[in-house]
Order: sequence, then C-alpha cells, then structure tokens
Amino acid sequence: MLSKSQVKYIRSLGQQKYRKEHNVYLAEGEKLAEEWLQSNAVIKMIVAEEPWIDANQALIRRHPDAELLIAKSSDLESISLLQTPNKVLLVVETPKEKAKLPQSGWCIALDTIQDPGNMGTIIRIADWFGITDIVCSHDCVEAFNPKVVQSGMGGHLRVNIHKTDLDGYLSQTKMPVFAAILEGTDVYDMPRNENGILLIGNESKGIHPQLIAKASHKVTIPRKGGAESLNAGVSAGILCALLLPR
Amino acid sequence: MLSKSQVKYIRSLGQQKYRKEHNVYLAEGEKLAEEWLQSNAVIKMIVAEEPWIDANQALIRRHPDAELLIAKSSDLESISLLQTPNKVLLVVETPKEKAKLPQSGWCIALDTIQDPGNMGTIIRIADWFGITDIVCSHDCVEAFNPKVVQSGMGGHLRVNIHKTDLDGYLSQTKMPVFAAILEGTDVYDMPRNENGILLIGNESKGIHPQLIAKASHKVTIPRKGGAESLNAGVSAGILCALLLPR
Repeated sequence: MLSKSQVKYIRSLGQQKYRKEHNVYLAEGEKLAEEWLQSNAVIKMIVAEEPWIDANQALIRRHPDAELLIAKSSDLESISLLQTPNKVLLVVETPKEKAKLPQSGWCIALDTIQDPGNMGTIIRIADWFGITDIVCSHDCVEAFNPKVVQSGMGGHLRVNIHKTDLDGYLSQTKMPVFAAILEGTDVYDMPRNENGILLIGNESKGIHPQLIAKASHKVTIPRKGGAESLNAGVSAGILCALLLPR
Repeated sequence: MLSKSQVKYIRSLGQQKYRKEHNVYLAEGEKLAEEWLQSNAVIKMIVAEEPWIDANQALIRRHPDAELLIAKSSDLESISLLQTPNKVLLVVETPKEKAKLPQSGWCIALDTIQDPGNMGTIIRIADWFGITDIVCSHDCVEAFNPKVVQSGMGGHLRVNIHKTDLDGYLSQTKMPVFAAILEGTDVYDMPRNENGILLIGNESKGIHPQLIAKASHKVTIPRKGGAESLNAGVSAGILCALLLPR
C-alpha cells in the first residue's frame, strides 16, 4: 500500500507545475511501462500491483535505481489519470532539451497546438516516419502532459521535443519550410523533398500569419467533400506521407 | 431557466440507451450548432443562452418546429458533456440508416473501432475526401456518441453511417477491398483506384483475420522510425490521400 504522501506526490504530477518542479512526467499502463522499461529513460519510480511486478522482474532489474512501490488496485485507482486505471505507472525523469534545433533532414514545427491528443498523435507520426525532432512554439500544450504521453505511444522515447520561439527558428533556418494551409499548392503536385520543416498550425486558427510569411512553400491537401478542415494530426500524417523521401 | 425534468432529459442523452430510446443525439457548441442549423437536420430542441439566441435569430427561424429553451450558463454547465460548456446545445433527430450499403465509389469500413475520437476523426476524413458512406461493424463505438459528433466536426451531416455485419458485406461486394495492415503491399507502389472499400481495424488488435481474408488488397504505409503503429484515424487519412482518385 502506498503512503499518503506518496499518493499525494504522484497525484500532484498530474499538474504541469509539479512536473516542472520535480523534472519528471508520468507514463501509465502496461504497454507504455514495458516500452519505457526497455528503453534508456531514467525511471525514478515504478508503482505497480504485485502480480505485475512478479511477471516483469527482468524489466524491473534493468532499472536498479528506480524506487519500486507495490500498490493495491485501489491505490492505482486513486493516482491514475486514466479512465480505466492500469496495473502499473512510472515516474520518469524528463529528458534534457537538446540545445541545437534541427537544421537538416525533416522536422515538424507546431504552432500553438492545444489538444493533448493531437500533440501525442503528431509525436507518434514523427516516430513512425523516422522524424527525430519536433519544434514547438512556446504556447503549445506541454509535450509531457500525461495525455500527450499516452497518445504518443512511445514516441517520446525516440523524438526530441524542443520548445522555442518559432518565428526566430524559421527566420534563421536554411531548410525549406512547408506550411500546411487551406489555400496553398496542391500537395499532389509537389515533389518529395530531401529535407524540410513541416509547419502545422493551431486546431481552429491555423498558422499565425507572420509564420506563414516565413514559409518557402504553402501546401494544401485537396478537398473533395464538405468538411471545413482536417484534424491537425491527420494533416501532419498525410503531408509526411507525401512530402518526405520514400 | 430549464425545468428539472428538462435538465434530466437532456442529461440522460449522454447515455446511448436514452439516445436510442428517443432516437436523438446531441450537438454541442457554437460551431456545431451553426452548421447543424444551416443544414436540413431535424432539430428537436435548441437550448441556448439568451445572447446567443438574440444573435442567431435567422438560423433559429430555419427550424420552426424545434423547441427553443432559454438557458442560464449554470443550466448549460449542468447539462454539458464538454469540459468547457458552451453557449448552445442541440437535440437532433438521428437520421434513418440507409437500407442500401455502398456498392460503388469509395467507402470506409470500420472493424471494431472503439475510441470515439478516432471514429469522429474518420467521419471528418470521409467528409473531407468526399466519401459519403462509412460502414461500421456492430461492435464499433456508437457513431452518435457526443464525443464522436464533436470530433466529426459536421461530417455527420454529410456522411451516411451504416452498422452491419462486416463479414457479410465484404463477402458479397464486388468492390475491391483494401485492408490496412502492418505487413502488406507498400501503398506508394499501389495505383490510385476508381472505387474501393478502405478497411480499418481496431486500435490495438487491428482487423479480424477472417475480414483480412476477404480483402483483395493488403496495404501498408511504410515505416521508417520506431513507432509500432500509426493511429487509426491517421492511417485512414493517409490511405485516402494515396488510394482515392486525385
């Protein structure tokens, strides 16, 4: 059973303020726990039910410095942020942000993405297409928010996430910038490119005009039906599939 | 102010059981309300704050049979299913399911899609690409679940949603069936097709093997990075962009 202070500490990590203060984030559920424990992430705490611990000794031994806490299912219910609480939860050290912003290959730049599910989906897309860097504007949702981690499906382990002044980054880069907008060049008419920055905008307001002005290419997925727009994650996925080298 | 029984009725529509019983669903928020009121959907009830009603007289007049209820913001808070309650909520009659399943053009078939956000995103994708029919297996999440309506972004007004025995449908159709799986033919090597059924599977288990066996084509988005899979909605979007006629 967890102590009251342990429960209090872990629950506090649902809030960005305390994640920042302790420089950690949460990874919850068997699927994520397995992937995280197989990785070189710095695991600070493993909170799990006894049967899960018994079944995963080898994984746990990979992280001798992690504090191992045996939890009852009622403990996990009280600390879980998921609707269906899981058998295991990890407290993980937040990786240090790389100082160098990407200047070659492909990366995704996010302007004011607000929805945690979208952010996580885009991290997962980057991870699928082998994109190793995502550059976020300062006002994007926090990338280590538990919902983002959940929908990132392990992408956080392989994709570097940067927060920066996007305007500054786009102003100085020599890479081509492809801004996803509603009235640009038909993406089917664009050749694939060896490198580039795919710029995706806010869910309802799109990309800030001053950032669009910095883009060397304005690109559009042609619409056939009645929808006003596509979801930010879906747009990012389609544009990766069409612009990146095969 | 709403009466207790009105509040009780509308709140009950958060549950599938009562939506079925009354043959209605909810569309919430200014953006959706505007789109729904501009459409020919049968609106049963408009619940809104007075300033919203004052500002939207023309839209409201399009639906003289709808019951108009003036609500306080506290009323809307108590009936809303959104985290940030909106100024308006509609109770809408569920459209009658079309008897005829699609046998030409393109449609999307969904096998056991469980996540409301994914279902809504796929309806929005269909709406964007001009696909007018989605055929769901009986065990998919209900398409008129409020979260599905929310993420469908108006697609429910233009896309016919069918529930059926997918095995039977795929067995009798003469259309080519493109099953999205992890180890199929590289989609970049496939020509676009005039018609077809894009078959998308469950978020964690994929497509049932007996349905894969019915597919004329097995198609894969090639992976470059470390992610195990792509989100169901993102996969559907990428495959629509690559398989449908330009």
